[in-house]
Amino acid sequence: MWGDPFRVAFAPPTISASLKGSPYIEHAMATEWTADEIRRVGRLVVDLIADHLTSLPGRPAFRPIPAALAQEMAATPPPADPVSPDDILRRFTETIEPYPFGNASCAGGNHAAIHLEREVLEWFRELLRFPRGAMGLLVSGGSMATMTAMAVARHVKSGVDVRQDGLRGAGAPFAFYMTTEGHSCARKAIELLGFGSASIRIVPTTDAYTMDVAALDNAIAADRRAGVRPIAVVATAGTTNTGAIDDLQAIAAVCRRHDVWMHVDAAYGGPAILSDRYGSAIAALAHADSAVVDPHKWMFVPVEAGFVIVRDGEAMRSAFSLVPSYIRTQGSAGEVYGQPWFSEYGFQQTRGFRALKVWMAMQQFGTRGYKAIVEENIALAQYLADRVRGAEDFELMAPSSLSVVCFRYVDASTAIEGADAEVAAAERESAAAALNRAVLERLQLSGEAFITSTELRGRFVLRACVVNYRSTREDVDRMLDAVRTIGREVGAATGLR
Amino acid sequence: MWGDPFRVAFAPPTISASLKGSPYIEHAMATEWTADEIRRVGRLVVDLIADHLTSLPGRPAFRPIPAALAQEMAATPPPADPVSPDDILRRFTETIEPYPFGNASCAGGNHAAIHLEREVLEWFRELLRFPRGAMGLLVSGGSMATMTAMAVARHVKSGVDVRQDGLRGAGAPFAFYMTTEGHSCARKAIELLGFGSASIRIVPTTDAYTMDVAALDNAIAADRRAGVRPIAVVATAGTTNTGAIDDLQAIAAVCRRHDVWMHVDAAYGGPAILSDRYGSAIAALAHADSAVVDPHKWMFVPVEAGFVIVRDGEAMRSAFSLVPSYIRTQGSAGEVYGQPWFSEYGFQQTRGFRALKVWMAMQQFGTRGYKAIVEENIALAQYLADRVRGAEDFELMAPSSLSVVCFRYVDASTAIEGADAEVAAAERESAAAALNRAVLERLQLSGEAFITSTELRGRFVLRACVVNYRSTREDVDRMLDAVRTIGREVGAATGLR
Repeated sequence: MWGDPFRVAFAPPTISASLKGSPYIEHAMATEWTADEIRRVGRLVVDLIADHLTSLPGRPAFRPIPAALAQEMAATPPPADPVSPDDILRRFTETIEPYPFGNASCAGGNHAAIHLEREVLEWFRELLRFPRGAMGLLVSGGSMATMTAMAVARHVKSGVDVRQDGLRGAGAPFAFYMTTEGHSCARKAIELLGFGSASIRIVPTTDAYTMDVAALDNAIAADRRAGVRPIAVVATAGTTNTGAIDDLQAIAAVCRRHDVWMHVDAAYGGPAILSDRYGSAIAALAHADSAVVDPHKWMFVPVEAGFVIVRDGEAMRSAFSLVPSYIRTQGSAGEVYGQPWFSEYGFQQTRGFRALKVWMAMQQFGTRGYKAIVEENIALAQYLADRVRGAEDFELMAPSSLSVVCFRYVDASTAIEGADAEVAAAERESAAAALNRAVLERLQLSGEAFITSTELRGRFVLRACVVNYRSTREDVDRMLDAVRTIGREVGAATGLR
Repeated sequence: MWGDPFRVAFAPPTISASLKGSPYIEHAMATEWTADEIRRVGRLVVDLIADHLTSLPGRPAFRPIPAALAQEMAATPPPADPVSPDDILRRFTETIEPYPFGNASCAGGNHAAIHLEREVLEWFRELLRFPRGAMGLLVSGGSMATMTAMAVARHVKSGVDVRQDGLRGAGAPFAFYMTTEGHSCARKAIELLGFGSASIRIVPTTDAYTMDVAALDNAIAADRRAGVRPIAVVATAGTTNTGAIDDLQAIAAVCRRHDVWMHVDAAYGGPAILSDRYGSAIAALAHADSAVVDPHKWMFVPVEAGFVIVRDGEAMRSAFSLVPSYIRTQGSAGEVYGQPWFSEYGFQQTRGFRALKVWMAMQQFGTRGYKAIVEENIALAQYLADRVRGAEDFELMAPSSLSVVCFRYVDASTAIEGADAEVAAAERESAAAALNRAVLERLQLSGEAFITSTELRGRFVLRACVVNYRSTREDVDRMLDAVRTIGREVGAATGLR
């Protein structure tokens, strides 16, 4: 009901013990972000700000970035090894700060921020293995990223000149395909774009909460036969509820066969493309027409930072650009307006310099650092799932995937009773939901740990999602102990069990 | 063509001389934001960050904000007098920092950031004189703000259950009304929402580039007669091109009579509601169904910060909420989920804490400080317009309104020749456009000043918009001198005049 549940798992005391000794992590964390180190780096930043703001009046009102520097930025590969904060700031001071731009809007223009954003977009394109010709955009988060992708899908697949004529007179009804596990932002985007939620087909899921691909195939075929126009399939690489990864390869084949747009929501799961365990399953998103990854989730960038990529960059431009197609260029002759503006590829005009924090974080961690942390988070979720499985008074409620674990507290003394009678099972289910609801509220308010809840096929479950590089086994143990203690108290006080 | 042109006017050397001595401004600027003062305040912030991040592990994972504090925040009126940076930080340290929230998303929940955002929204509601029951939202900027308002207009006025059924089967074609001077983001929003740009009626403008209200009235009546369904009028309080303010009172009467949604784009002009000169013209936006003001424009908040307000807050919720209407509440019983989530009133789920910078800036300046600066900027534009009018080689191209001045460089020796013959006039127009285009490009690349251009009824003009409190008459003089010098050089070199 609350859309994107809180994602924070536990209050973390220290950097995970098992990550100590990893050269990537130790470097990424600048060994220790102690208060002193935060102060030291923070003061470097403050000095930079003071120098920048007070030197502006004596500097030119505008100075285009040198072509050689822009080319160098365009050719820089994604950082593999972590870079120290001092080196990141030095790079910023040398290449970005000297070429600012008035109100700092990143709509477009020939200033350093634009070239830095293109550098970041190219890093993502390479990491996600999308072809050249794809275009990416940094937006506020997964909702805007999804909406952007769906708007391009609409432009390409609706069969009407939607920008000119809208959807009112369209000949055939439309259809989108997703599962109950797809994020609610896809529904919001489909509604916003004027399709209506009635156009959404809920495809059944497997026992692992992934999309049933045969059912998808059948649903699209049935729609085609009925004269309905399929627009897009919204697949997920790392669902919010359970971390499930849809079979992207198989879904891509279905989409190709039926000429349907394939979109992959990897907002949370995307960075696990770097992991040994889930890498190839997620890498199959390169077959999609569009995909979303949120740097502000598992890449530790402060909110707001969402990323969308569209295979056909020119279609993306056609879906949004207000520049008439006959005068669109690949790069302005003038040195002020620069390359095609980002605002031609998405909905926003004035845009903040959110690329900067993504650029900094990606260097701070490096792809090797991200790989180490993501794998550590996955291992920690596995540890939690194992502990749940091994305890009589906990119950694992879904297969654990990526770094999500759904579980419940059950009263050990009554867990088995009456499980074979249907009425008793329904009563037990209802009691278990009430018990866990009460446990969760008390746990959250206690401040001891903060996990969330969700519903899986109508069943209320507790949900932990490990996306903090400082979380440890001790945090998991503390959280489970707190759930157990509160569970016993609530059970004793209310008779719920 | 470029949508929202760069808004920066000139490179400012010092705080405007005429603002010195204003207690509001001197206080607002902390007397002098010297490098030392930036360092001093910056270090206070760095210390705060260091203390916050390193004390988190020892603190509860969550702690609800005390009810008394939340109530106090809800009851705080908009700041009239400027508050010193030290006091702003002290308030932050006492009331906000102790009640953080995991990943800092401001989708909703019972943490301090949410209550602070509600405080800011209430300030805007009071300043814009919207009634209680209105609901506001901070979004990325004017585009998202406009889209949000138009989505509510669609929900209320389309006559179909658009969230469920979409626009495809709607009985009547739709219509929106705006002028050529309306911002392109309205067109983008109307297209995005699935209406198509063919539904946009371009209402003629007066000589002052404001909406011709009689023509609007006729256009709506004609559409009604033809069976077209009018959705919304997009009026503007401070157009991007010339700063023109539509007659909001008269437009409101037309909208009421025809039952059409009235939206006011005050993204740029909104803060001039505090000015003596334009206050009452802009205050008439309180008659609208929705309005937009961008704090990141004339309120000196760093991008991105847009604000939208909708008179009927419940309609806004119905247009976006995924919470079924029968279980919507005015405030959750639990102490974790808090009041209705912001994500129920708009498109985004995860939302950054952008309210913080708006809250800080509004205290730094206070409404008295904003009034002083806005009036000073208006006076400076007036000075520029006067200088243009008084010079033989400059031409004022539109009535100056708010802080925008549109003008052209003309070669004094040929300005009068052939002006009465139609062919000669067309040739002169084309030469003047070419001359000013060349002048602008050289001016921008020179770094001496940075102004922009626009088109007014097909005529290319230079455009200066004063939205920097540090701009002075000396900057205006320097800019005009630079235009004149480059104009003479270009004229001599190319023969354009």
